[in-house]
Amino acid sequence: MIQRIDGGITSAKGFKTASCEAGIKYPNRRDMALVWADVPCAVAGTFTSNRVKAAPVQWDRKIVQDGGPVQAIVVNTGIANAGTGSEGMRLCRESAQCAGEVLGILAERVLIGSTGVIGPNVPLERIQAGIRTMAGNLSDSREAAALAARAIMTTDTVPKEAAVTFVLPAVGGEGAVTVTLGGMSKGSGMIHPNMCTMLAYLSTDCAIDQGLLREAVSAAVTDTFNMITVDGDTSTNDTLLVLSSGMAGNAPITEKDEAYDVFLAALTEVCRALAIQMARDGEGATHLIETRVIGADTKENARTLAKSVVGSSLVKAMVYGKDANCGRVLCALGYAGPAFDPAKIEIEMIGDAGTVCFYRDGCVQLFDEAKALEILSERDVRFVCDMKMGTEEATAWGCDLTYDYVKINGDYRT
Amino acid sequence: MIQRIDGGITSAKGFKTASCEAGIKYPNRRDMALVWADVPCAVAGTFTSNRVKAAPVQWDRKIVQDGGPVQAIVVNTGIANAGTGSEGMRLCRESAQCAGEVLGILAERVLIGSTGVIGPNVPLERIQAGIRTMAGNLSDSREAAALAARAIMTTDTVPKEAAVTFVLPAVGGEGAVTVTLGGMSKGSGMIHPNMCTMLAYLSTDCAIDQGLLREAVSAAVTDTFNMITVDGDTSTNDTLLVLSSGMAGNAPITEKDEAYDVFLAALTEVCRALAIQMARDGEGATHLIETRVIGADTKENARTLAKSVVGSSLVKAMVYGKDANCGRVLCALGYAGPAFDPAKIEIEMIGDAGTVCFYRDGCVQLFDEAKALEILSERDVRFVCDMKMGTEEATAWGCDLTYDYVKINGDYRT
Repeated sequence: MIQRIDGGITSAKGFKTASCEAGIKYPNRRDMALVWADVPCAVAGTFTSNRVKAAPVQWDRKIVQDGGPVQAIVVNTGIANAGTGSEGMRLCRESAQCAGEVLGILAERVLIGSTGVIGPNVPLERIQAGIRTMAGNLSDSREAAALAARAIMTTDTVPKEAAVTFVLPAVGGEGAVTVTLGGMSKGSGMIHPNMCTMLAYLSTDCAIDQGLLREAVSAAVTDTFNMITVDGDTSTNDTLLVLSSGMAGNAPITEKDEAYDVFLAALTEVCRALAIQMARDGEGATHLIETRVIGADTKENARTLAKSVVGSSLVKAMVYGKDANCGRVLCALGYAGPAFDPAKIEIEMIGDAGTVCFYRDGCVQLFDEAKALEILSERDVRFVCDMKMGTEEATAWGCDLTYDYVKINGDYRT
Repeated sequence: MIQRIDGGITSAKGFKTASCEAGIKYPNRRDMALVWADVPCAVAGTFTSNRVKAAPVQWDRKIVQDGGPVQAIVVNTGIANAGTGSEGMRLCRESAQCAGEVLGILAERVLIGSTGVIGPNVPLERIQAGIRTMAGNLSDSREAAALAARAIMTTDTVPKEAAVTFVLPAVGGEGAVTVTLGGMSKGSGMIHPNMCTMLAYLSTDCAIDQGLLREAVSAAVTDTFNMITVDGDTSTNDTLLVLSSGMAGNAPITEKDEAYDVFLAALTEVCRALAIQMARDGEGATHLIETRVIGADTKENARTLAKSVVGSSLVKAMVYGKDANCGRVLCALGYAGPAFDPAKIEIEMIGDAGTVCFYRDGCVQLFDEAKALEILSERDVRFVCDMKMGTEEATAWGCDLTYDYVKINGDYRT
């Protein structure tokens, strides 16, 4: 019922985008994007848990908490507008006012996103000039969406987009309706994003009650964006926003019925696709590391254990080095927190080349080193940890720790 | 009253040591050490919080919990004897039995320490041969202690030793007595040690009640070993042991009097010295990073905030890259957990070259980049974070994240 399509932020009905080279930090690259909705949209969002919240996060959070509606998102890269105090809030307000004037809407309907270096000197004039340029170039084309996804990148090496269509079941006298949901993101984490920050913007034409949209976002994020980690650092700027234009023509979803379930599944699918793209493109990464914990006693423990493995510096370095030092996976489970019996659990490493059992019956196993090397030479490496305690499971995604991670973050500003 | 001396595990009266090349994993290097006490000793210890505890940790913990006394410690490097199930426990028992027979004591008076790769194939015969060799070469010389500190190294680049003498105040009819405490350690952490594991062995001739010795160890560890981090991974093997021979001739410390306070201060001094040596020698490290949090509302929050900064991959990479991307320190405080007001706190970076204020009045400050570079070019870099909430403070130590960390851990087994 849910079908992946080639698309992004403009796939759903009613959304346009534009991007430009505003020259905020780097010359000759797109560094701003504008997302526009033809109608005022219902909105839901989640934001960083960091005590230090960047000015754009404070701006957006208030608008989302107040219930919207919203009609535009202005995003810049190069400078995070974090650690900027009241001056940072003034910059958000002036950016939103500029966009509001140019687009003919209230400033309170404009959300702001910033990503880049934390610190002073946000170039307001360039941002305002960028907004004016982009407002004249809005388009719902596939190409415009792809360029916008590229414009919000910082240390990302590839743009991240995902989109689906899905059919909502017929309700009352109405027939089945096809709905679209798509989006773009940048960065590499949510609970543990790296400093270049996770930004994710999704748009849908599905008509849905705003309270239910918020519930769906919370549910979808828990098993997707919140299950990736790159370096354990939670940014000041992380933001996920979902806008709904309601233009698909479906009977609005107002309760947790079958239509809601389909919408939630589609939202989760797009969030998962974007989250995995971010983990795979973690700074300096050469491998995606997936850890699936099964047989856990509770869902929360399954999540904690899976995240501990993908977050371990030693597991990450071992995958980079293609060294099947499997005790490190065992060790990362051990310090995660949840209780388990080391004598009962099983740990396997799985790839296209086959499966290697690392640990069983309380002992690290002798295994086929050649096959292990083959698996570790693949782009994606998967660990499966069976806790033998129950039926709950969770999957987390991360990436390896490489020389390039150190290089990128050793001179990020320069 | 407390004086640092050049010394180690044999500085206190009643302790001898030996080391040898047992050929456990690498040829032509000392890889075993034996610590011997002329008399049965009171003992206190702390062990890894990892759910997966290596066999030697299980062995030692039982003996320490049962109250000792103990008279010998057998340490090997190269293989961790972790993830080895009941076979691992058998190896501990047989090693202790071998040492007991050779040294003429009960196996239950022999503690075991192992560090190295997690996994199967612990070479019992070589360990037994090593024990026999070492038992014939025990010495209380300075050189023997230095060689033992070297023998317990894995990826360490320098041995770690520290010792003090201190004078216990006169009690009743007795005069003041000079007491000695010294020790050695290897590895790089306790709460967050790297996989090569933290092992720390201390010996003293101070006569002290075993319950008070335990209390003193807990108190000393909290602000020293537990405040260092290298990579966030808590090993399966971490062990700290303190043995007391009671041979200094002091009136035994049996309550928390002035003598106890002096003993605790001396113990804390030695633990801090060893802890800082471990942080400075973290895998691949080129800088020691010290973070002092002052003005915190509670001691626990001060500890949490300080550890978050030294544990941040992005702060670590920035110090390595000599890039004063100071927002990362702010960010690491923000995701640490404890509440604070970002508008009030102050952050400074301090070195021999001077002081740079990074953040104040809610804003990242413009600072003297040349001076910042000068400070970041020094071996030790210090951040001071004033939370402006109270009077509690704590200091944490870590090291930078370098290419060599990735290199060392990308092919640790090979």
